[in-house]
Amino acid sequence: MITITEPKIEKYLMKLSREADRHILEMERIAKQRDFPIVDRLVGRLLFVLTKLKNPKLIVELGSGFGYSAYWFARALEKGRVVLIDTLQDNIDYAKKTFQQARLAHKAEFRVGNAIERAKDYNNIDILFIDIDKHQYLEAVQKLLANLNDNALIIADNSLWHGRVVGKKRDRDTVGIRKFNEYLFSHRDFFTTVLPLRDGVLVAYKLS
Amino acid sequence: MITITEPKIEKYLMKLSREADRHILEMERIAKQRDFPIVDRLVGRLLFVLTKLKNPKLIVELGSGFGYSAYWFARALEKGRVVLIDTLQDNIDYAKKTFQQARLAHKAEFRVGNAIERAKDYNNIDILFIDIDKHQYLEAVQKLLANLNDNALIIADNSLWHGRVVGKKRDRDTVGIRKFNEYLFSHRDFFTTVLPLRDGVLVAYKLS
Repeated sequence: MITITEPKIEKYLMKLSREADRHILEMERIAKQRDFPIVDRLVGRLLFVLTKLKNPKLIVELGSGFGYSAYWFARALEKGRVVLIDTLQDNIDYAKKTFQQARLAHKAEFRVGNAIERAKDYNNIDILFIDIDKHQYLEAVQKLLANLNDNALIIADNSLWHGRVVGKKRDRDTVGIRKFNEYLFSHRDFFTTVLPLRDGVLVAYKLS
Repeated sequence: MITITEPKIEKYLMKLSREADRHILEMERIAKQRDFPIVDRLVGRLLFVLTKLKNPKLIVELGSGFGYSAYWFARALEKGRVVLIDTLQDNIDYAKKTFQQARLAHKAEFRVGNAIERAKDYNNIDILFIDIDKHQYLEAVQKLLANLNDNALIIADNSLWHGRVVGKKRDRDTVGIRKFNEYLFSHRDFFTTVLPLRDGVLVAYKLS
């Protein structure tokens, strides 16, 4: 396991990134308490900026957990909506409750089930956010290519997989992430970059 | 001095970021040979993605060096132009030659002089890129606030200043970068994040 970004730097950035929204703070507290994996606040802020720049009509999330990343998307949305998908009813129920309390529910749609299958119900996806099992990333993007809008953005969490991408590990998650990265970096229809925030955030811009 | 991102991760990302453009490769070679500071290829790729998302009419660079970052901006531009400003005539001459050879000169304007002063000639700036002396960052953004367009993007290189921002150093460059970061993170008109790529890239989105 490799430390991707120097912890002192992360601490400095967290200190700069003050937050007053009580729902964000509560979700961060719960995540810590239950050791539930969420993209952290620094990644959340990146999602906010990317959403402002893209101004999307439709965001589809594969693997929403209890709604932390979706909350950042919804916060930044001007007119569009975000579709949350998770396999666990409990997660989606929690997200729905939070969104209702924060008066963001009108910007969201809540789905339970297999993320890739449910996502096929949507066309002209402007932002596809991927945070499911790591060996399924490549399959997810390949199966949903036709559902993307022109100039869509693919954003994938854990694209450096705790640094395992650079080692010799051959487990299916590490291999899956490596293949996913290589696929998008070498695909002629995409321009791809990975930002070494937290566990690595891949951002791929569809060129046509 | 702190290593911001684990070098093995940077190496992995560089390997994924293959490049065929001979002008990019030549500028990277020259920078290495002369030990001339440029944003590297990973930051260049980030600038490309941000430019595609923003689709700006006008980009103004403060501190263009010999044109490496401007080249990435120009490559991504659909219809707008990028203004390069540097204090050194030699740098701007080199950039101009490169842009002409690459048939990108029609997307660029070349200026020699004090970056902040020259930049005041422009209004409705969609992307302001800052890479001048570090103690001047805060002054630059304060003096040019009125020249920014609605929803402009400020992008600043070296916003982690080799990790010195987290130490006890009190030299004017380190203090300057700290103040600049704090100013934009706490400004109510901006939503700000720093991406720990290379030496730190600050990205601030103007909310109105």
